[in-house]
Amino acid sequence: MNELALVDRLRRMSGKGRGVIRGIGDDCAVFRPKAGEDLLLKTDQLIEAVHFPRSMSPERIGERALARALSDVAAAGGDPRCCLVALAIPRSKADRWILSFFRGLMGLAQRTGTVLAGGDLSHDDKVHCSVMVVGAVQRGKALTRAGARPGDQLYVSGRLGKPWEQRIEPRLALGRKLAGKATACIDLSDGLALDLHRLCKESRVAARVESIPIVKGASLERALHGGEDYELLFTLPPSMKAPAGTTRIGTIVGGTSGAVWFEGKRLVRRGYDHFAPELKRG
Amino acid sequence: MNELALVDRLRRMSGKGRGVIRGIGDDCAVFRPKAGEDLLLKTDQLIEAVHFPRSMSPERIGERALARALSDVAAAGGDPRCCLVALAIPRSKADRWILSFFRGLMGLAQRTGTVLAGGDLSHDDKVHCSVMVVGAVQRGKALTRAGARPGDQLYVSGRLGKPWEQRIEPRLALGRKLAGKATACIDLSDGLALDLHRLCKESRVAARVESIPIVKGASLERALHGGEDYELLFTLPPSMKAPAGTTRIGTIVGGTSGAVWFEGKRLVRRGYDHFAPELKRG
Repeated sequence: MNELALVDRLRRMSGKGRGVIRGIGDDCAVFRPKAGEDLLLKTDQLIEAVHFPRSMSPERIGERALARALSDVAAAGGDPRCCLVALAIPRSKADRWILSFFRGLMGLAQRTGTVLAGGDLSHDDKVHCSVMVVGAVQRGKALTRAGARPGDQLYVSGRLGKPWEQRIEPRLALGRKLAGKATACIDLSDGLALDLHRLCKESRVAARVESIPIVKGASLERALHGGEDYELLFTLPPSMKAPAGTTRIGTIVGGTSGAVWFEGKRLVRRGYDHFAPELKRG
Repeated sequence: MNELALVDRLRRMSGKGRGVIRGIGDDCAVFRPKAGEDLLLKTDQLIEAVHFPRSMSPERIGERALARALSDVAAAGGDPRCCLVALAIPRSKADRWILSFFRGLMGLAQRTGTVLAGGDLSHDDKVHCSVMVVGAVQRGKALTRAGARPGDQLYVSGRLGKPWEQRIEPRLALGRKLAGKATACIDLSDGLALDLHRLCKESRVAARVESIPIVKGASLERALHGGEDYELLFTLPPSMKAPAGTTRIGTIVGGTSGAVWFEGKRLVRRGYDHFAPELKRG
């Protein structure tokens, strides 16, 4: 199959709607925003031997690539609308690989109402994927990392320390509930310690963590620094009730901007840093 | 510099405005569309040893990565608003490399009114960049490949067959002039033969090419099949006057959808196909 034939196949897998009035098959996709909505934009990379092992199936890679970006839309309180996918693969991989990748991606896309609106295909020595998503949120209601205030209560969805190869289910329903309510929100992709530091730094506050809901069998170390949990970490004013399925883990306090306290000690940020010396997983 | 420090630096290079109300430093960028506008979405990859040689400077790579995506916004008749950049680089490259890359990109971004709204940094064996741009166009006025009709006249901007390493100046001003007027438009990234075939195929028409404005010293072969010209190829109804700086090169005709005729023969599509067996340039 050449590029034109392949794009034709992908086009039949994709669709319109959700604001997408012109999708695959043109220089640009055309998106019509709804009045009264802000848009959320996010791009995220998934690279072989950096973010996933060579042995992962194309379906799982495709699904994971989209899931990671959707998790950010969830953290901003949004509703996904469409995505664009830039994919490079080795020449050794058959067209079947690409179609499987997109089948995996489209499964999650359809479950979450995300239209595949465009993309770019190329070759490279290994699999390299960038997904860009567009989400929507009621005007002025986007959640950011920046609004937490001393006295706010700190919550997390689910349990932390999940094995990284677990399926990612972006917390979109929870994010939508929190939009316009939570004072700050972030998704836990790089570990509680680092991501909470980021939230506190943007909000110019500190945090005191009291307890952490941990996945059965996982270590505290993994729950704090492991990353790839894709749960939401958020803050609510003390008077506000948290949605079901979330756990209070601490309190926002004043003090050194970005400081995170746990069991009387300041947590060292050891979450995943893409620019730290060693590979994440191999 | 670790990732947090680097993101801080990039944040100071980026900005707000052009609809971007929350940029780098959050899970998503927040973009506020203007009433009465459609948005244009495009993602494009630039990969070392596939799209550019190892010897290219980081400034030029950054500029080129954005320029290619902006050329698609021009082809859709749009005005660029913001971009998101996913960049992976080898560990051997210093932070200085990243900052130079973004300096190159930001130069073009500022000249074209494109706000750097977000991105993602990672490591890989070689440089791999995906740029996603958001453009805007008056509602319903986006140019597509699909509206050319028999009798329309075929035009191209500039001259074709440029050496590929020439600087790309996306034809944004021309694209804006054509919005709502041209019946079809595409940017010439993969060669006149292949891109005209694409335009004709989407419009379900054929084309008869009469003459081609060629760069001094370039071969006809390169002008037809070389790619990387980043000029606009567009069609106008016969009654409409073409903007200055453009040349009429032929006529849209009926017949086999996608067929392109030149000098009495049907042109074989030999433009660059990312899924053809050999590398584009090494």
